[in-house]
Amino acid sequence: MTKNQSEIKDVVMIGAGPSALAAAVYTSREAIDTTLIEKGVIGGLAAITDLIDNYPGFSKGVTGMELADELKKQAERFGAKIELNEVLSIEDEGECRRLKTHEGDILAKAVLIATGSDYNKLKVKGEEEYYGRGVHYCATCDGAFYKDKKLITVGSGNSSAQESLFLTRFATSVDVLIRGDHWKASDVLIKEIEEHPKINVHFNTTTEEIVGQDNKVTKVIAANKQSGERVEFETDGVFVFVGLRPNTGFIDPKTIELDEAKFIKTDENLKTTMKGVFCSGDVRSGATMQIASAVGEGATAALHIREFLEGHR
Amino acid sequence: MTKNQSEIKDVVMIGAGPSALAAAVYTSREAIDTTLIEKGVIGGLAAITDLIDNYPGFSKGVTGMELADELKKQAERFGAKIELNEVLSIEDEGECRRLKTHEGDILAKAVLIATGSDYNKLKVKGEEEYYGRGVHYCATCDGAFYKDKKLITVGSGNSSAQESLFLTRFATSVDVLIRGDHWKASDVLIKEIEEHPKINVHFNTTTEEIVGQDNKVTKVIAANKQSGERVEFETDGVFVFVGLRPNTGFIDPKTIELDEAKFIKTDENLKTTMKGVFCSGDVRSGATMQIASAVGEGATAALHIREFLEGHR
Repeated sequence: MTKNQSEIKDVVMIGAGPSALAAAVYTSREAIDTTLIEKGVIGGLAAITDLIDNYPGFSKGVTGMELADELKKQAERFGAKIELNEVLSIEDEGECRRLKTHEGDILAKAVLIATGSDYNKLKVKGEEEYYGRGVHYCATCDGAFYKDKKLITVGSGNSSAQESLFLTRFATSVDVLIRGDHWKASDVLIKEIEEHPKINVHFNTTTEEIVGQDNKVTKVIAANKQSGERVEFETDGVFVFVGLRPNTGFIDPKTIELDEAKFIKTDENLKTTMKGVFCSGDVRSGATMQIASAVGEGATAALHIREFLEGHR
Repeated sequence: MTKNQSEIKDVVMIGAGPSALAAAVYTSREAIDTTLIEKGVIGGLAAITDLIDNYPGFSKGVTGMELADELKKQAERFGAKIELNEVLSIEDEGECRRLKTHEGDILAKAVLIATGSDYNKLKVKGEEEYYGRGVHYCATCDGAFYKDKKLITVGSGNSSAQESLFLTRFATSVDVLIRGDHWKASDVLIKEIEEHPKINVHFNTTTEEIVGQDNKVTKVIAANKQSGERVEFETDGVFVFVGLRPNTGFIDPKTIELDEAKFIKTDENLKTTMKGVFCSGDVRSGATMQIASAVGEGATAALHIREFLEGHR
C-alpha cells in the first residue's frame, strides 16, 4: 500500500510530560510539524507535584502546575499540537511508523516515546475499594483533604520521605510504615523526618490490609516482620509511595527492546531498537526520575529526531 | 603521604556554567559539600546570550543573564560555594583526586568537569589586533555598539544565522561571509535570513584579513573561492561565529580520555575514564550544545556523583 504523503506526520510524541513538551519546544521551533498524544494529564507527574525545588532556573522553586503550564504554553507558542488520545501499539512500516490509537491509525516519520512512569500499588485488600476515599498516591492532589486528621504513609524512598513531610502541613500526625529496617532516602530528608514532632517511623512493618467503614478508611492493619505480631493503626487516610512503573504496556518488546524492569532501552542518541523511534524521560532505561534530566533528554532527543528527519526527507 | 580527611572536599565542580550549577543545585540540596571553580564568567556562555527562547519552563523566553543569575542563586541557596580560580591539572590519587590550581592544590573525592566550550577564532590578520575594537564573538555583548553601523558576520552555522538576525536590531546592514556554498543552519533560520531586507549572504567567500585605521575596523578583505577574485567589504565591525572549542586544555588525555575533537568521553553514567571524575555539558563528547541538555546532564551527573560518594564513605 502506498501511503498518501500528506497523511504522514513528521513527528508524533507519545506523552505530554516535561520530556515530550521540552522536545516539542525544540522540534516545533525548528518548524517540524509536531503532535503530542497524551492519555492522562498534560505535564505528567510534574503537574501533580507541589513545589519543585530543584528544577534548574527557578531559584525559589516552582509549583508543578506552573512549570507544566509554562512548558505547555512554550511548546504551543511554537506550534506544537497536543491531542488527548491513547496509543495502543507502534509498528515499523519502513518509510514511517504506524501508531494504532482509540481514534484510528496515525502515521509518523519519527516517534518520541516519553510516556513516563506511574505509581506502584501495594496490592492489599481495601486498597482499590478505598481509592480516592482514603487511599491516595499523590500528596499534592489530596493532602489538603486531611486537615487536622491522622495519616499513614507507606514507603521508604525519597518520595515517601518528602511527601510524609509535606503531609504534616495538614495532618496532626503521620505514621510511616516501612517494610525494611532503614530508609532509602537522602540524608537531608531522613534528618528532617527524625527531627519532626508529627512523624513516627515504623520499620520492619508490612502493610496487610486497609480497613474502612461508612465509605471511609478507619485503620490500617500491619504486621511486625520480625515478631509476626499484628499491629493496628487508626487513621483517616493512607498515602502510598512505593515507586513507579514505566508506561510501556503498549510496547511490543520484540520490536522495541525493554530492560528487565520494562523501561525502554536506548543508545547514546536516545534511539530505540525500532527505526525512527526515540525515547526520553522517566520511561527510559537508566532514567534518573528527575524533571531536569527528563527535560534535557527531551531536548537531546529533539536534535536527533531532526537529524533523522533531515536524512529522511 | 596520608592526607588529613578534613582537607578532602566531597565534590569539586570545574566550571560554573549551567551544567555545573544544575549539578550543584542537586548535590548541595542533598547536603553534599559542593565547591565550583570558575576561571571566567559565572553562567558560562549562557550568561552572555541575549534571549534564550528554548530553555524549557520559560514560555516567553528568558535572558541569559537572568537564567545564569537564577541558577547561581539556586545553587547558593542550598549551600554551594563558587570560587574564582583556575584548575591546571587533575591527578588520581586513589582515595581522592588532586586538582592543581593557581592557588595551591585542592583534594576532592569526586570531580565534575563542566568547563564548556569557547569560541573558535578565524586566525586571520587583524583579528587579534582589533579584538574588542571591531572584532567580536558575542553579538549580545557588543552588538549594541553598532547602532546604525554596517556589519560583517562570518560563519554558516545556527549561531551565525541567529546572531546575524539579532544584529539587524542595531546595524543598518549585515553581510554574511560563508566559505562553503550553503548554510548549515536550521531551515527556519535560513528562511528568516533570506527574507530579511538588511541581510546579504555571500557564499564561497573566505575571510582573508581584517583591516582597520585609527584603532577601528574599516573593512574586511575576502576572496571568492571559485574565481579567486579579491572582494572588499567596507564595515564598522566583524562578528565571528565559526564554532566552539572544548575547554579541555588542562586534561591529560592519557588519564581522561578525549575524542578526536578533544571533547571528554563518558559512559552512560557520565563517568570519565578517571575514577571519581564525571563530565557534563558542552565539554562532553556528544554534547548537543543546548542549555537544556547541559542542565539535564548536570542533574544526572549529580545523582551518579552521590552514588559514587555513598560507596566511597
